[in-house]
Amino acid sequence: MAERLVVIGGDAAGMTAATNARRGRSDLDIVVFEKGRYTSYSACGIPYLVGGAVESLDDLVVRTPQEFRDKHRIDARIDHEVMGVDLDRRTVEVRAIGQGRTITMGFDLLHIATGASPTRPDLPGIDAPWIRGVQTLTDAADLLERVERGDCGRVVVVGGGYVGLEMAEAFVDRKADVTLVERGRHPLGGVESEIGGRIVEVLRGYGVETHCGVEVTGFGDHVVHSSGGDLEADLVILGLGVTPNSALAADAGIATGVRGAITVDHRQRTSVDGVYSAGDCADTFHLVSRERVHIALGTVANKSGVVAGVNLGGGYATFPGVVGTAVTRVCEVEVARTGLDVGQARAVGIEVVVGTSNTTSRAGYFPGAEPVLCKVLAERGTGRVIGAQIVGADRVGKRIDTMATAITAGMRVADVVNLDLAYAPSITPMWDPVQSASRDALRRLDLPWA
Amino acid sequence: MAERLVVIGGDAAGMTAATNARRGRSDLDIVVFEKGRYTSYSACGIPYLVGGAVESLDDLVVRTPQEFRDKHRIDARIDHEVMGVDLDRRTVEVRAIGQGRTITMGFDLLHIATGASPTRPDLPGIDAPWIRGVQTLTDAADLLERVERGDCGRVVVVGGGYVGLEMAEAFVDRKADVTLVERGRHPLGGVESEIGGRIVEVLRGYGVETHCGVEVTGFGDHVVHSSGGDLEADLVILGLGVTPNSALAADAGIATGVRGAITVDHRQRTSVDGVYSAGDCADTFHLVSRERVHIALGTVANKSGVVAGVNLGGGYATFPGVVGTAVTRVCEVEVARTGLDVGQARAVGIEVVVGTSNTTSRAGYFPGAEPVLCKVLAERGTGRVIGAQIVGADRVGKRIDTMATAITAGMRVADVVNLDLAYAPSITPMWDPVQSASRDALRRLDLPWA
Repeated sequence: MAERLVVIGGDAAGMTAATNARRGRSDLDIVVFEKGRYTSYSACGIPYLVGGAVESLDDLVVRTPQEFRDKHRIDARIDHEVMGVDLDRRTVEVRAIGQGRTITMGFDLLHIATGASPTRPDLPGIDAPWIRGVQTLTDAADLLERVERGDCGRVVVVGGGYVGLEMAEAFVDRKADVTLVERGRHPLGGVESEIGGRIVEVLRGYGVETHCGVEVTGFGDHVVHSSGGDLEADLVILGLGVTPNSALAADAGIATGVRGAITVDHRQRTSVDGVYSAGDCADTFHLVSRERVHIALGTVANKSGVVAGVNLGGGYATFPGVVGTAVTRVCEVEVARTGLDVGQARAVGIEVVVGTSNTTSRAGYFPGAEPVLCKVLAERGTGRVIGAQIVGADRVGKRIDTMATAITAGMRVADVVNLDLAYAPSITPMWDPVQSASRDALRRLDLPWA
Repeated sequence: MAERLVVIGGDAAGMTAATNARRGRSDLDIVVFEKGRYTSYSACGIPYLVGGAVESLDDLVVRTPQEFRDKHRIDARIDHEVMGVDLDRRTVEVRAIGQGRTITMGFDLLHIATGASPTRPDLPGIDAPWIRGVQTLTDAADLLERVERGDCGRVVVVGGGYVGLEMAEAFVDRKADVTLVERGRHPLGGVESEIGGRIVEVLRGYGVETHCGVEVTGFGDHVVHSSGGDLEADLVILGLGVTPNSALAADAGIATGVRGAITVDHRQRTSVDGVYSAGDCADTFHLVSRERVHIALGTVANKSGVVAGVNLGGGYATFPGVVGTAVTRVCEVEVARTGLDVGQARAVGIEVVVGTSNTTSRAGYFPGAEPVLCKVLAERGTGRVIGAQIVGADRVGKRIDTMATAITAGMRVADVVNLDLAYAPSITPMWDPVQSASRDALRRLDLPWA
């Protein structure tokens, strides 16, 4: 009988693993169980679907179960929830949702890609149905229905992380009165306060009532209680980050660690032989802090899913890890970060100086040039680049990739200053913002030019 | 008496050297001779001034002689042309233009930043006044005057390099009938033909009559003779690249080399003690081909100028070199390249495979997503990144910086695939175009994932 790979979870980390395992082993019997209604979709696109920029839910679906079946001979079953894993008998217990039956299936290889769920803090009243997280396409469909019903006139977004900001904008686009409540001094925890401050300006300019330094304490009857007073709401969106869905793995005896995420090695192997994991439910390695971290992002899910799949298919692949890169757009302003922020650096004992540049997206004299604020963190002593952040309109977010690449390569700020980056006045100033901030860091480090 | 630094040339490489030398040595007597009417300006902005996107010539001037005098105690003299350098007597012979007098000035340190001039091939009739290069602000002023006179109804651009393309667009914006004549199979020599082909489409779509594979053979009375027939013209723009202005240095006995450029070392020192050079008149080191090259770009001029200045001021700085990065915009489409192209790689004995991606600027489903074509060249055997090229609208040109950084760091395509680059569907697809092309290169190399 053919060996069988069972994959739990049918989104990015599950399906890339399944297809890459198939590429390696045509003999393998591959079954995927997905508890939702969709496989392989772009969860990151949900705010734009809710806001109306993306027209149809189908636009977010990359591939359907039928396509996996036809093209890759992968048996992808939606509406199937895995309830338990028995590592001694090498079986999974699966509930066929809506069919009232449970099946038991054996496996030789197991891949856990159960993702993560919006964090729900233990606050009074939080389980009310008008308090929603945003993670799956099913969540998206529910929110869209609510928009169509007109049941979202007053929206409170709790937490100013990436998804929180994107959802705040989405509901302004739907003509809602939107209030953002952020516990910290500014949204987006991992950026310098000057950058966070610029985001607050953009949000307010777009019509989002933004309260920083305010803590939500509980929920009443369509009321959000907070340290800043009560806020009426038809709908609350939780933007407090996500928690890995690792209970299934932990219950089976698979090791978990940082923030409860499943512990994996650089080949995406868990603590149990023949059991792999990838994506939002698993941990990953941070190349700057040299610690295992939990970073729930589509990029990590896709890459780690490929690596798991290659290994499951009998090949050899490793995932080196991340440097903490993230980007989003708030209205037309893009904000991006990579590496460690000042607090994270301090936590792992790295002393940094921060270089700043206030320049423009194109040459200052060129029509369409927009202000750009950039920060570069360099290690005191060595000048090694530890992190960078950038904010501005005119599509500058991806300039952070230069710094993500520089950090991965272990470059110093002097190396960045000397990088041969692209220049034309219609496109960028002579010194790219990341180079200007690196020059400032260099001056503050009191290190020679090169 | 104070030691004196004489700088020949008052644009980027000259003035950055002067100001950085001042920073290092407050005692130094610094005199700059500039034969034109302007110091420190953005020559790269000239096409946009001629085209009307940039409103005033003054917008391109970064700093005036007065500012250098007041802020840095630098004696910057415009309309002063250095006619000769006597290295035995350590003097320069300077003509004060329009004043009918010549002065002789001694120096202790000399910095040569004489720039480059548009290449004028030895063709019959090429010295006619309606055949113009574009290099200095004085050229720009002359062209603007011609635009105002309406004396540019029919413009022929000879050569499809960066400046040629930008000038073609500029004159279309001025309602001229513009014809581009390019000897090669497509404009922009250093890109793959598929990318060059896309540029031809864009040019034609914008109204530039584009003739490739056509050689100009000479000029008659407002007629351009070519292998494809005669073309009538009120104005010819030469876009055939530039030739270093190194005659002054060579005549003095300073060593020149590649394409006639002044030979410098990594501290921008020439073959003569105490004599430095930087910018378009000097050569530089190519980090991939490991050869000395002549690359006339503002980025190189500024960086090498700073390095020269630090060293002239008694400090220590080195310029590591370039990787051949360049970008421009043709209408709304940006095209960029870095590293070696296939021909350049072959010339230095590097065998490459070419990976290709045809993706989008944002997630495919996101409004505003534009097609992006990307090429990545990897060395056969090692998988080392040798070059990359990208073309597309929606501001994708600067994505080449990721590859410029990766090449500088000696990364392989597998490293690029694993880079933690920024992703949000409103900004970029899950796999950045450079990663998709790197994945394709990886497949063609038949190398493992990582």
